[in-house]
Amino acid sequence: MYDQILNRLSQFISLNKAEQDFFVSKLIVQECNKKELILQEGQICKYAYFINYGCIRYYYNVDGQENTAQFFFENGWYTDYDSFLTGKPTNQNIETLEKTQLLLLAAKDLQQLYIDIPKFERFGRLMAENAFLGIRQRSEILENQTAEERYLTLMKERPKVFERIPQHYIASYLGIKPPSLSRIRKRIFEHQ
Amino acid sequence: MYDQILNRLSQFISLNKAEQDFFVSKLIVQECNKKELILQEGQICKYAYFINYGCIRYYYNVDGQENTAQFFFENGWYTDYDSFLTGKPTNQNIETLEKTQLLLLAAKDLQQLYIDIPKFERFGRLMAENAFLGIRQRSEILENQTAEERYLTLMKERPKVFERIPQHYIASYLGIKPPSLSRIRKRIFEHQ
Repeated sequence: MYDQILNRLSQFISLNKAEQDFFVSKLIVQECNKKELILQEGQICKYAYFINYGCIRYYYNVDGQENTAQFFFENGWYTDYDSFLTGKPTNQNIETLEKTQLLLLAAKDLQQLYIDIPKFERFGRLMAENAFLGIRQRSEILENQTAEERYLTLMKERPKVFERIPQHYIASYLGIKPPSLSRIRKRIFEHQ
Repeated sequence: MYDQILNRLSQFISLNKAEQDFFVSKLIVQECNKKELILQEGQICKYAYFINYGCIRYYYNVDGQENTAQFFFENGWYTDYDSFLTGKPTNQNIETLEKTQLLLLAAKDLQQLYIDIPKFERFGRLMAENAFLGIRQRSEILENQTAEERYLTLMKERPKVFERIPQHYIASYLGIKPPSLSRIRKRIFEHQ
């Protein structure tokens, strides 16, 4: 159950057995069906979510439509970092797209880990840096790339998305309508 | 020379005298005149800049015009966190708006501080979290607030900007032209 998260953690910091056990004792297991809403706008995002298996997306409700912002797969972390850090309500919604198992780490437990096991500061720093780089990259792509360029970037960097995510969510993530996605796919494959 | 930066640091972490001296030994002092360009797009942002006194702004060149993104004053840190972390070229430009004294901390020296004095991890984490919250807040303001709301937010949260920054930079920061800024000021002051 905890091998994957401990392996992932060991890429950032080195923990002994007692520290690993202490960390694991803070985790809450959550089993979810496909299409389950885990977090809803207006709620406070109290947890960082590690995906043991499965897949989630998060989206914003804008003018009556769902704007998909990101997908996360097994071995990845998700949190609304803003709400998680400040305790203010989130404007994000997360839902599972497959049967999913999550390991939840509460914000207050992470704060306590920083105190009890200072090595976690390094983990926290790298997570925060990654969160920063993630939203920076996402906003640069949205501002500077055409829909076709975004599609090619996604194909190159995250082919898994095309294997596991329904087309209409991919279109939403690229900021276009499903028929535009079909046209882009057609154009690209005709040129190959 | 170093009292202010050490005070600021002590809000995040507690250092003994030897650690303070070691940290200070890594700093580079840079004296700048008003309107000096410190960093230019295309360069790599190799430093975190602490402002001992003075004021800087950073801006993007977009379609032949300068879009002002932020102002920083004494006792504040600036870095293009993306370029600083990844080593890729920045798309930001920083210039001084007053006679300014900067203390520079090199990215490679900060990485070494994380190893030599692990307490710095906490400082790094809090800096990264602040950087994240900063760009998140800035993009939410730009997406969701009218120019007038942005003006009122700025008045409330950073009155110093109005005391020290020329009007045309404030207009640029709010995403409007100087005449629109004059109209907004007129409207607000007439209603008071």
